[in-house]
Amino acid sequence: MDTRDALVVADLVGVAVFAASGASAGVAKRLDLFGVVFIGFVSALGGGLLRDVFIGRVPPLALADWHYSVTAAVTAAVVFRFHPHVAKLRRSVLLLDAAGLGLFTAASTLKALQAGVPAVGSCIVGMLTGIGGGLVRDLLTGEIPVVLRREIYAVAALLGAIAVAIGYQFDVPATPLMLTAAVFICALRVVALSRRWEAPVARLDP
Amino acid sequence: MDTRDALVVADLVGVAVFAASGASAGVAKRLDLFGVVFIGFVSALGGGLLRDVFIGRVPPLALADWHYSVTAAVTAAVVFRFHPHVAKLRRSVLLLDAAGLGLFTAASTLKALQAGVPAVGSCIVGMLTGIGGGLVRDLLTGEIPVVLRREIYAVAALLGAIAVAIGYQFDVPATPLMLTAAVFICALRVVALSRRWEAPVARLDP
Amino acid sequence: MDTRDALVVADLVGVAVFAASGASAGVAKRLDLFGVVFIGFVSALGGGLLRDVFIGRVPPLALADWHYSVTAAVTAAVVFRFHPHVAKLRRSVLLLDAAGLGLFTAASTLKALQAGVPAVGSCIVGMLTGIGGGLVRDLLTGEIPVVLRREIYAVAALLGAIAVAIGYQFDVPATPLMLTAAVFICALRVVALSRRWEAPVARLDP
Repeated sequence: MDTRDALVVADLVGVAVFAASGASAGVAKRLDLFGVVFIGFVSALGGGLLRDVFIGRVPPLALADWHYSVTAAVTAAVVFRFHPHVAKLRRSVLLLDAAGLGLFTAASTLKALQAGVPAVGSCIVGMLTGIGGGLVRDLLTGEIPVVLRREIYAVAALLGAIAVAIGYQFDVPATPLMLTAAVFICALRVVALSRRWEAPVARLDP
Repeated sequence: MDTRDALVVADLVGVAVFAASGASAGVAKRLDLFGVVFIGFVSALGGGLLRDVFIGRVPPLALADWHYSVTAAVTAAVVFRFHPHVAKLRRSVLLLDAAGLGLFTAASTLKALQAGVPAVGSCIVGMLTGIGGGLVRDLLTGEIPVVLRREIYAVAALLGAIAVAIGYQFDVPATPLMLTAAVFICALRVVALSRRWEAPVARLDP
Repeated sequence: MDTRDALVVADLVGVAVFAASGASAGVAKRLDLFGVVFIGFVSALGGGLLRDVFIGRVPPLALADWHYSVTAAVTAAVVFRFHPHVAKLRRSVLLLDAAGLGLFTAASTLKALQAGVPAVGSCIVGMLTGIGGGLVRDLLTGEIPVVLRREIYAVAALLGAIAVAIGYQFDVPATPLMLTAAVFICALRVVALSRRWEAPVARLDP
């Protein structure tokens, strides 16, 4: 499997994972079948559409290649039919979200670097792509965006993106670089969730 | 009237209709003149801006051709001055929205196909353009997005977009194809509203 | 200092000002360090990213030039550490927002004109860039968007953008033109705030 194939597979797995996360959030909000599929769809494709517009790849891959939209829609429909029990829905959303965050951030940072975007910009594109899907999902379902909650989120994505940019600079092969970064981001996010790591809050004098 | 003229007219009517729908929503929320015009403006132009960015047409038509912005702003101002009675405001929003959904979806799917976007991607671009204006309007006025309510909405747009893509494949002339699809989408949406068609909701075990 | 340098400096000051405004809003909402930096970041860069996508400049300047993202992140972090007292936070957000509105609108209108976008479209790009950061900030922190409140906001930006477009037509040198328009917009906005200028609201018959 060469680098391009690996990027496509990572992208599609990320699409499926974010579609499942969005669909679970939709089921928890009691949306109907189409609402659930729609939320899954935009959660899965939103980040990638943004990335491709920023790196000048039009029409975006998610529109040029039908595998993306079909993967997102089918995954969301499957979650609608076979969703987990209520008590597990919220945890499913968070775990799938962590996996998607890792995969999308790592793959998108690499894509931006390969498209000639400078390192700092590539890290930002990677981070925005990774958090974009969850942000759209939370805005549409009326939740406080996960990225603003008092947990490590965007910063995990950013650290992983920086790792990809450094590895790219030193010619680390793309596939292992991407996978390592994806696992690192996902693990950091899951540990932060389970340990309830929290960043400091500004002191407010009355 | 050739195909290009027909596309421009359909686009401008869609702009006016969505501007009126957005402005009505703004009046119902007691926004001031500028707020009403602003909501009308972004509801009318949001979908088309998105479409043009995705199919690589920059600067987007709504910015390159002043007819678009003037149509949107004037329509919204007229609605502000001569808006219907309170009781009819909500119905006006829904009916105008259905007309805009049909016109924008059909015209945008056709534009995307003509710009060389593959069929599946063109249908998605058409659907997103059609629902984009209403989504922005509802997010800004704090309503539950119409696309997430338990009614047929995005799916009506998608079916119409698929009809356009199939007709395009079989060389159906563009103008009648577009008009038929627009009427079909609008009718399907209105019938779904009046008959209260609802899609299934996932069963939740406690 | 030639025109290009002046545009870059105006852009960077606008980025810092909007980052400070977004970060103050984040502190007021009790977000943690990363949440505050993230809000500052997207408030500062959101408008410019939008502008560059619309005028076809990819990758957008904010991603191609690391000064932008570093300016935004550092400013937000400084505000997190040395934020003003609670009672002054809301006023800080509004004043910084007015300054950013002026700088971004003037600089972006000029950029769009120089990129060959027609005058009406350039004014709209300038206005959207100016209001974009505040809109994102308010959507993410759950406030009613400042542009929809009953005060002069988008219309101040639009008037300034029109002034830039007229001056550009008559070959007024770019740097003084941009600065004058920025000061004009900011002053108009501050006066509207302090005098509580309000636009009319539509009469609602029951």
